[in-house]
Amino acid sequence: MRSVSIVGIGQTPVDEHWDLSVRHIAYHAVSAAMQDAGIERADALYVGNMLSGRLLDQEHLATLIADFSGLRGIEAAKIEAACASGGAALRIGYMAVASGMHDVVIVAGVEKMTDTPSGGTTAGLATAADAEYESAHGITFVGLNALLMQRYMYEYDVPVDAFAGFSINAHRNGANNPNAMFQRPIDLKTYVNAPMIATPINMMDSSPVCDGAAAVVLVATERASEFTTGHHRGAVQILASSSANDTLAIHDRKDPLFLEAGYVSSQKAYVQSGVTPSDVDLFEVHDAFTIMSALTLEATGFARRGEGWRMAQDDEIGIGGRLPISTMGGLKSRGHPVGATGVYQIVELVQQLTGTSGGNQVKGAHIGMAQNIGGSGATIVTHILGV
Amino acid sequence: MRSVSIVGIGQTPVDEHWDLSVRHIAYHAVSAAMQDAGIERADALYVGNMLSGRLLDQEHLATLIADFSGLRGIEAAKIEAACASGGAALRIGYMAVASGMHDVVIVAGVEKMTDTPSGGTTAGLATAADAEYESAHGITFVGLNALLMQRYMYEYDVPVDAFAGFSINAHRNGANNPNAMFQRPIDLKTYVNAPMIATPINMMDSSPVCDGAAAVVLVATERASEFTTGHHRGAVQILASSSANDTLAIHDRKDPLFLEAGYVSSQKAYVQSGVTPSDVDLFEVHDAFTIMSALTLEATGFARRGEGWRMAQDDEIGIGGRLPISTMGGLKSRGHPVGATGVYQIVELVQQLTGTSGGNQVKGAHIGMAQNIGGSGATIVTHILGV
Repeated sequence: MRSVSIVGIGQTPVDEHWDLSVRHIAYHAVSAAMQDAGIERADALYVGNMLSGRLLDQEHLATLIADFSGLRGIEAAKIEAACASGGAALRIGYMAVASGMHDVVIVAGVEKMTDTPSGGTTAGLATAADAEYESAHGITFVGLNALLMQRYMYEYDVPVDAFAGFSINAHRNGANNPNAMFQRPIDLKTYVNAPMIATPINMMDSSPVCDGAAAVVLVATERASEFTTGHHRGAVQILASSSANDTLAIHDRKDPLFLEAGYVSSQKAYVQSGVTPSDVDLFEVHDAFTIMSALTLEATGFARRGEGWRMAQDDEIGIGGRLPISTMGGLKSRGHPVGATGVYQIVELVQQLTGTSGGNQVKGAHIGMAQNIGGSGATIVTHILGV
Repeated sequence: MRSVSIVGIGQTPVDEHWDLSVRHIAYHAVSAAMQDAGIERADALYVGNMLSGRLLDQEHLATLIADFSGLRGIEAAKIEAACASGGAALRIGYMAVASGMHDVVIVAGVEKMTDTPSGGTTAGLATAADAEYESAHGITFVGLNALLMQRYMYEYDVPVDAFAGFSINAHRNGANNPNAMFQRPIDLKTYVNAPMIATPINMMDSSPVCDGAAAVVLVATERASEFTTGHHRGAVQILASSSANDTLAIHDRKDPLFLEAGYVSSQKAYVQSGVTPSDVDLFEVHDAFTIMSALTLEATGFARRGEGWRMAQDDEIGIGGRLPISTMGGLKSRGHPVGATGVYQIVELVQQLTGTSGGNQVKGAHIGMAQNIGGSGATIVTHILGV
């Protein structure tokens, strides 16, 4: 396999983009990434997206975006793995370059969840769960995560505000990210007084419905310098790329509080890269809900079972902490345009590893990790990047 | 890149499967392919599917199918490129093995278009077109193809029954395929008297709404014999895999009667494989509508512009002809479960190239080609297989 590096990044602000359709949002990220890499053509465009067919009456999305971005004649395909679609798309782009099939590949993630002609964003998100055995009974995606959080609190005897630290950290970091949806810090009082959505998940435990797109340009590492010469930002190497699945329905798992797919996926990535958890300088976690942050830290070897929440309480997860997470605001504060999130995580890792993260820069960051989760832990994609 | 071969195939009959949900249909094809290859595990499952989120309230489909097929812990992702989803998924599986990332990969295509809880199959199919500039105006997918057929008849002064030969050939071949939806031959009278759907496309020009799944198992060619020893069917090598896009909307094309993406995609495949059109023993074309058969033969170098239809009139496309097409009934008679079609084409090529096609066997077939089309020619995937 050829080693693969990222030589260009692009992103739109995450927001409610009432004035932009999905093609425009994606175009802004794709063209920014192409400009960043100094390219005018690519061999392929892989697009992570979950809901365009259902919410926007638009499938065949990757070809539409390639067309609208002036990239005719190339390969284009959409990759879907619920909220892990972005990470899954990056893996496909990675393999396309690693195999030698393609030399220059663009991977984009895009989601438009507001102003949707066919509506039903909450019902759309529920399609990440088992349609016949979970969502058919009326439970929403927030509801499924609420069951996990309730169980965690019961099993480990943890108070509800144990999770506040994850939300406070995300908002503190988002305040310094001009692309974040929410650019204001919150405190414990805000968390405790937040409206309840699905007990015990309140508004500060939960990521927002929003629109956005992010993109990266991938090339063989041996050719990376051709794209970054005279460029403010150097290339970042993909040290590991892996994915694992678990049962789609939570009730089919032996132990719902252990993210088996997160464990398998991260172990594969550690083996591929030779990186151990203690080498990781920062970790972009999939904090769609605060409970997911705790479970992720436990599944990937950064915290013991039942103790992931303590890392937030002890503020080990801040920019200067033992393991900074959600460094640009995470899904909670930067926002969670579902199919785009996995690519936003990668764009933000590239910023960190090239020292271009502004007020949130993790000093001396050389190794960064991202984990992108689909459904309630049924698909988990891990990437480890390094400079 | 490692050379990649197919060592197992599976398919369900194409039909209206009122008694099976999408997970069951996919499971039957996946388990049949695994049994055919003699495997109990795989490293990844890539699933071609277009409409599950919209019609069945089920995204995250690849993980669901992996889970339901007992394949936990592996990579799973759904690939969407409208009706080219199956071919696009095969390309991803091909790159995964070619890169060395995975050793054993299953590629499946599945679509359930009947008995859909959320309904609207015709509206769902229209999401392959440009939602804002084509389908928003109310045109269906059949309507878009009718415009192309009308233009072809006008431009080349061709009578409407010029296309009958494609339909007659497909039904003649489907009659010998136990997995075909329609297993009865038709004659010119049936074609001429068929009810009109969208002038000039009648029911015999158009493929049916149906359900089905097909699957293949891919491994590195150098290891193929491990999977086919003591097996009735040998391995089939993937000699070329390519994809190209065109504008999503027909009105954006300089020449709507030339499938530019079909030309680019086939030329890439000829170069990769060293195969020329005269080497091809049979060709599985994307005959969703008879006009697409004519345009495909012209774009890929088998017929001159405006003369693709003559190959059907002169019966060059029959099993004993110069270039047999739709040898197991094609999309018209075998059926067109959209996201599965690209994989059915590959399964049927493997049958032909291993001499297991029964009454429709093309004698001495060594090189087979398949082209899978998304939208009205906006994504075209070409594969060339050989033994």
